[in-house]
Amino acid sequence: MSDKLIYFFGAGSCEGSASMRELLGGKGANLAEMAKLGLPVPPGFTITTEVSNHFSSQGGEYPQGLKGELEVMLSRLESAMEKTFGDPANPLLVSVRSGARASMPGMMDTVLNLGLNDTTVEGLAKSSGNERFAWDAYRRFVAMYGDVVLELKPSSKKERDPFEVALEAMKDARGVTYDTELSATDLKELVGQFKALVLERSGQNFPEDPKDQLWGAISAVFRSWDNPRAAEYRRMYHIPSSWGTAVNVQAMVYGNLGEDCATGVAFTRDPASGEKQIFGEYLINAQGEDVVAGTRTPEPICSAQKDPSRPEQRSFEELMPAAYKQFREITAKLETHYHDMQDIEFTVERGRFFMLQTRAGKRTGLSAIRIATDMVDEGLIDARTAVTRVEADAMEHLLAPIFSPTELRAAESDGRLLASGLPAGPGAAAGKIVFHAEDAKELGNKGEALILVRVETSPEDVGGMEAAKGVLTARGGMTSHAALVARQRGKPCIVGCAALEIDYEAGEMHVGGRTVKAGEWISIDGTTGKLYMGEMAANPSEVVEVLIKKTRALETSDIARRYVRMLEWADTYRKLGVRTNADTPEQSAEAISLGAEGIGLTRTEHMFFEGKRITAVRKMIMADDLAGRRAALEEILPMQRSDFEGIFRAMKGRPVTIRTLDPPLHEFLPHTAGEIGELAGELGVSVEALEAKIEALSESNPMLGHRGCRLGIFYPEITEVQARAILEAALTVQDEGIPVKPEIMIPLVGSKTELANQRAVVERVAQTVFNEKGKTVDHLIGTMIELPRAALTADEVATAAEFFSFGTNDLTQTTFGLSRDDAGKFLPYYIETGVLPADPFQTLDIAGVGQLLRMGVEKGRSTRADLKVGICGEHGGDPKSIEFAHEVGLNYVSCSPRRVPVARVAAAQAAIEQS
Amino acid sequence: MSDKLIYFFGAGSCEGSASMRELLGGKGANLAEMAKLGLPVPPGFTITTEVSNHFSSQGGEYPQGLKGELEVMLSRLESAMEKTFGDPANPLLVSVRSGARASMPGMMDTVLNLGLNDTTVEGLAKSSGNERFAWDAYRRFVAMYGDVVLELKPSSKKERDPFEVALEAMKDARGVTYDTELSATDLKELVGQFKALVLERSGQNFPEDPKDQLWGAISAVFRSWDNPRAAEYRRMYHIPSSWGTAVNVQAMVYGNLGEDCATGVAFTRDPASGEKQIFGEYLINAQGEDVVAGTRTPEPICSAQKDPSRPEQRSFEELMPAAYKQFREITAKLETHYHDMQDIEFTVERGRFFMLQTRAGKRTGLSAIRIATDMVDEGLIDARTAVTRVEADAMEHLLAPIFSPTELRAAESDGRLLASGLPAGPGAAAGKIVFHAEDAKELGNKGEALILVRVETSPEDVGGMEAAKGVLTARGGMTSHAALVARQRGKPCIVGCAALEIDYEAGEMHVGGRTVKAGEWISIDGTTGKLYMGEMAANPSEVVEVLIKKTRALETSDIARRYVRMLEWADTYRKLGVRTNADTPEQSAEAISLGAEGIGLTRTEHMFFEGKRITAVRKMIMADDLAGRRAALEEILPMQRSDFEGIFRAMKGRPVTIRTLDPPLHEFLPHTAGEIGELAGELGVSVEALEAKIEALSESNPMLGHRGCRLGIFYPEITEVQARAILEAALTVQDEGIPVKPEIMIPLVGSKTELANQRAVVERVAQTVFNEKGKTVDHLIGTMIELPRAALTADEVATAAEFFSFGTNDLTQTTFGLSRDDAGKFLPYYIETGVLPADPFQTLDIAGVGQLLRMGVEKGRSTRADLKVGICGEHGGDPKSIEFAHEVGLNYVSCSPRRVPVARVAAAQAAIEQS
Repeated sequence: MSDKLIYFFGAGSCEGSASMRELLGGKGANLAEMAKLGLPVPPGFTITTEVSNHFSSQGGEYPQGLKGELEVMLSRLESAMEKTFGDPANPLLVSVRSGARASMPGMMDTVLNLGLNDTTVEGLAKSSGNERFAWDAYRRFVAMYGDVVLELKPSSKKERDPFEVALEAMKDARGVTYDTELSATDLKELVGQFKALVLERSGQNFPEDPKDQLWGAISAVFRSWDNPRAAEYRRMYHIPSSWGTAVNVQAMVYGNLGEDCATGVAFTRDPASGEKQIFGEYLINAQGEDVVAGTRTPEPICSAQKDPSRPEQRSFEELMPAAYKQFREITAKLETHYHDMQDIEFTVERGRFFMLQTRAGKRTGLSAIRIATDMVDEGLIDARTAVTRVEADAMEHLLAPIFSPTELRAAESDGRLLASGLPAGPGAAAGKIVFHAEDAKELGNKGEALILVRVETSPEDVGGMEAAKGVLTARGGMTSHAALVARQRGKPCIVGCAALEIDYEAGEMHVGGRTVKAGEWISIDGTTGKLYMGEMAANPSEVVEVLIKKTRALETSDIARRYVRMLEWADTYRKLGVRTNADTPEQSAEAISLGAEGIGLTRTEHMFFEGKRITAVRKMIMADDLAGRRAALEEILPMQRSDFEGIFRAMKGRPVTIRTLDPPLHEFLPHTAGEIGELAGELGVSVEALEAKIEALSESNPMLGHRGCRLGIFYPEITEVQARAILEAALTVQDEGIPVKPEIMIPLVGSKTELANQRAVVERVAQTVFNEKGKTVDHLIGTMIELPRAALTADEVATAAEFFSFGTNDLTQTTFGLSRDDAGKFLPYYIETGVLPADPFQTLDIAGVGQLLRMGVEKGRSTRADLKVGICGEHGGDPKSIEFAHEVGLNYVSCSPRRVPVARVAAAQAAIEQS
Repeated sequence: MSDKLIYFFGAGSCEGSASMRELLGGKGANLAEMAKLGLPVPPGFTITTEVSNHFSSQGGEYPQGLKGELEVMLSRLESAMEKTFGDPANPLLVSVRSGARASMPGMMDTVLNLGLNDTTVEGLAKSSGNERFAWDAYRRFVAMYGDVVLELKPSSKKERDPFEVALEAMKDARGVTYDTELSATDLKELVGQFKALVLERSGQNFPEDPKDQLWGAISAVFRSWDNPRAAEYRRMYHIPSSWGTAVNVQAMVYGNLGEDCATGVAFTRDPASGEKQIFGEYLINAQGEDVVAGTRTPEPICSAQKDPSRPEQRSFEELMPAAYKQFREITAKLETHYHDMQDIEFTVERGRFFMLQTRAGKRTGLSAIRIATDMVDEGLIDARTAVTRVEADAMEHLLAPIFSPTELRAAESDGRLLASGLPAGPGAAAGKIVFHAEDAKELGNKGEALILVRVETSPEDVGGMEAAKGVLTARGGMTSHAALVARQRGKPCIVGCAALEIDYEAGEMHVGGRTVKAGEWISIDGTTGKLYMGEMAANPSEVVEVLIKKTRALETSDIARRYVRMLEWADTYRKLGVRTNADTPEQSAEAISLGAEGIGLTRTEHMFFEGKRITAVRKMIMADDLAGRRAALEEILPMQRSDFEGIFRAMKGRPVTIRTLDPPLHEFLPHTAGEIGELAGELGVSVEALEAKIEALSESNPMLGHRGCRLGIFYPEITEVQARAILEAALTVQDEGIPVKPEIMIPLVGSKTELANQRAVVERVAQTVFNEKGKTVDHLIGTMIELPRAALTADEVATAAEFFSFGTNDLTQTTFGLSRDDAGKFLPYYIETGVLPADPFQTLDIAGVGQLLRMGVEKGRSTRADLKVGICGEHGGDPKSIEFAHEVGLNYVSCSPRRVPVARVAAAQAAIEQS
């Protein structure tokens, strides 16, 4: 136990600092730091966490000397505030608050307006010129004190709070609805009733002596460290109970004691645009909550901020020039001290300026980039810090078109907001509703703006999704087919919008009691997940125009220049490579323009669905023998080859990882009677034969069925044709003088033997092709690690693999035993009720799946030291997962093209944080 | 390199021993050991593996001194045999064989009858009195030598073996079909042709000098160590190439040189019954292959063995009393030396007895038990050794009814054998074919013997399976529904009998071109997987009659007494507990009579399908709200309670692990239109509503869907009712004076939070029930570990679990990403082609799933030292998996009742082997 038990802060003196968090708690240390900086915080003192520990361990006893020390501190506080505890004319009032080392919001107790009693309340009434305010503060204080200090809690769950009951009775008696409608006299009467309640329930009078009140409150706060709620919270967040809490006693200051009082909030820079100008609002003679309540309209702080169309506006700068000057000095000092944009709260009490709080201000992505780049230029921060100042996700948001904030605000207030779903693909889009992919393609080709609305999407809908401006589905999660494709194509998308009832036959949907028909306009905001009725205008992203579409020069866009600067900085810090998942030359080109260093995943099956190919694929499936399959595969060969040529050309020598066929064959067959009949005719087989084939291929659990390398092992001819297409394409493009680096990836491997089998097939084909052409091309053969067994036996698997790519989508499904397609029924409930902390398909489950990842890397490199390891599941674009990827030493992450900038920044942040 | 390069054996002298396996190879060491024992092996010598290594590393050079040493050894061999190499009258002939440290059957080369040439062949003809035999031996030797030593292999795959071509031509010329039809003259002519071929192809004459022949053969055998076939074999079985092979040169002895010659095979005890009497056959003037070829009928060795109905039989004992005496001395010595029943081969050449081979004899399960118990009584082995002498699986085979061997042999030769499938449930059964479970129940109640034949079975078929004598399915693997249920109920069962085409509508099946109709008799042997036409009589198991049915006293059955003795011995050695998987009091009682020490898994859902319960379950599923579900669950409560009471009573204080509801709810709903219509009527809902519910509950991957604890978390009322049923039943039975130990097990847990959620539900119910009844019952709450994530985070999970039970079926599915229901399409191909070494659903995959098991145990015990850990998947009854369970320190294994004796023995064997 230290000698000093209490630390004073404010009024030009400060005994603590930001570094004394352990002793003073978070709040106490921050107040000390502000005071140390010379900021005019309302003065007060902090009782240390050591006292808390003593209090807890000694059954509520205080250490010797605390009482004397507190008397001294209280005197200092009285003189600093020029007010006295219990003074009927000008009483000192204080707040008593907890403050542990870690933030535990709402877990412990607080008492405000302490010091009020039957006499000081009159002083407050007089000095505020507002009798009602004073009595309202008093009745609140009595109730709060009764509740927190005297623990007059309801005796059972059924009983209501007695103070609440009395308040309701008073309102009934007066025939009013709201608290605010009660008069000062009413409130005075209520105080009397509250005090009677205290006596009745606790057997003692409400303490009139402010010092008794203070000791009661301090003990209550210390006690609250051990209340069940706080203890549970500590268990959840692994906070040791030995930390204890500090208690902060601070002078109350009021911005509503008259016209020489004010209260306001301000950002040191514009939190929306990032412009370097004060952005804030204030109110004369008001309390903090009035500024945000909306009952009075706040005025601008700076004159420059005034709205020219509202000449009646009066700025803080105009009305309180002295306080404003002090405020400006402070804001300048804050940014220099904290090296960041600050969000501050202040109060002016009788002309005296008080800082209540300062903290790093929340900001939009746009603003974050602008502030970070500006601050580098101003010398406030270095590039390394700048990289950490942007939420990595914001890098993608800046690529999306947006609705204007004014329009959004209007739409939400005038009833155009229809429903909310999951924000699966950022960006704004408006279009006419279309329910079928075929219609979308047809109408889209005519130039119509469309939103494709489906219960859920399947691979056959991809063309329609491409033709639409945006996609909306009633079912599915953040990693559903619709979400995956939309993000990969950069389409605004909302999924899992459960409020939609879609009636395909009637060509309409029902939502919130409304019926909306095909052809009607809707607008979707994929960044927020909100769906609106009607057409709302969306503005394109400047960054996209400059970097991807190249319709504008870099010099013409301030934000694009800053965006590029951030990415360049990020690149100097990151250790992880960043690749993209891309299936076409177009996607590849887009990813390169956003900085992709290669392709981490090309899904060959996506190519199988396009145009005439699906027919050839279906012929192959229907073939009864090897010869028939080979004939059909021969038709597919030139198409795949030309796909790969296009991608190799676009990638200009960057590595391209191509996965051999993965999905079960039944995914390529139709399901409805109509489609089956049509296909039977097309293939020249009987409907019965086709149906029998579909039945034979059907599976109980397709996710765990005949797919991945199991196909290639059973039908080596499929792997052969794919390997041939890849290698022939590579040779062709290499002949054009463009370097190529194909990496052939075998999916769903569970044992080394499976990989070795497919490796042998590929090597045999390579030898044949190289012999035929008389030349060779460098290539790698590797595997996806997407089954627990592959990770567990990675040491063996690595002996047959030149690279690993973690397919974390499937690895998450198998590790959790959780089907992504079916989890939608209960996963939201799991997350809501805290059974799972997050959707493991969005953010890598480090405790479980992460262990397998780490094991896979370590074991893999134990038998092949130079094994290249990446990640190509959805997690490759998720910042938290990227942080983990950096930690376990992956070589690269691979994500959809528009997540590439996110990954570059997240990788840099991980490198900086873990350095 | 040692000084001594060659070791002599036989003729009363022996330079090696069984312990010199590294130097002499397996065969050489065994020959040395026999010689050391004083057994009359044909003498010979072994050239060491060191010579092999020298030969390999020095490009085919031999170490200095080898030639001289060989000359010495050859002289010793000649004098031991009283024959001389190249002697025209009485030539020494030898075999030259490889022999590595590990057995590599057929991988390397062998040369027989070496020493024959144009002059010695005449000597052989004369001494054998059989010119044809001598020339046949010679022509075989020339061809073998040409092939192995001179490497006159076909020059391409298309070309045929030239010696074979010449032989065929000769047969064509003589107008005969078989080799045996060629005369001595023909064979002599053929030798001439063969030699011409050798000259033509190799450019050199066939070596007439036996020493040249010998050196050629020795070099060829050493060379064969490095042939591609052997190298590939070594890679597969991890045999280092540095081991090298020895070469064994051994005198040829012939049992066909006249009437004073014989050859025979014998077991030192009866390999079928285990009786302590020589069981063997021999032939006068014959070679080894003649005994087994069936062209002559072998005679019994002992006179006691003679068939009274065949007075013409002449025993070895009678005909060759001196040799027989030597034979009996040897067999006595063998069992004393090897402490096991031996399978021996011998030859008598001109009255001289030679032992060719001795090895532990293969035996039936029955015989193994009898021999082991007898040998303990004889003081030959101790109980510990006896336990290792029985294949654990045999303990189950002895519980099954069997067809008599005579009947089986007859059925296979007269065309009654219809097809083969997987032997999924051991035992023999005959019955009339029935294709529907309902029919089986109806006819079974009338006392008809039935075989239920289905494409595959589902939970609704369980009643029908129970009513049938046996089950046969066209699809499914060893762990399909049919297989699991059949084994649990002890029903003979064949699954995956792919040759069956079942036509339910026509009420018939097609198999091997035959049509078999419902009502016709078939017989199935679930121990072999064979299916027969017609009714074959099956004999019940004595062990079952004594131990389970208790219709016979133990004293009346020799085999049952021995069976019990084996199990008692096993129990003294095993460390693992053995529990059973049982869902009814009947199964529980059966398991106890076989030694189960508790129940490791009671599946509550199996109870849900019976009788009226399914209706209540369906009502619960169809209920729209909590109240409706609760009402339906109230109907289920008394039924479940009485189920548990029955089980607790049967288990008499042994621990009973009960799993809360596991399967997805849609498994309880009907699927065909008819059933749906019927159920809708029954429940009073519309067909549309029922169909909508079925649709809403349908899942893409039910295995990974809304099941296990995910149900109990979503519908806590289900867990509540189950916990209440368990605890109320426990209290009732405890009141009857019977101790109870319920262990409530939560399935499909992937994270500690899930378990904690369900644990809280159970604890709340326990508190309520105990308060209501005013008494308590000890109980445990634990979880199944059946998802990789549960094993990976077992340290966390264990903080909420008092026990773990590995559900290795699901753990295998998720670790491999392999659906048991779908794997049938490609898993057999995988095993056939060596992609997987075994079906991981039958034998635990130690490399992958085993890692998770080990991790689960270690991590679990790291946070809860006294964590009880078991295994309740199918692997709990598999000996290899039990061995692993012992190794990782599980507390118990749990298996179906009839596997309990298997598990007891396997657990003891594991403990003995790993001690």
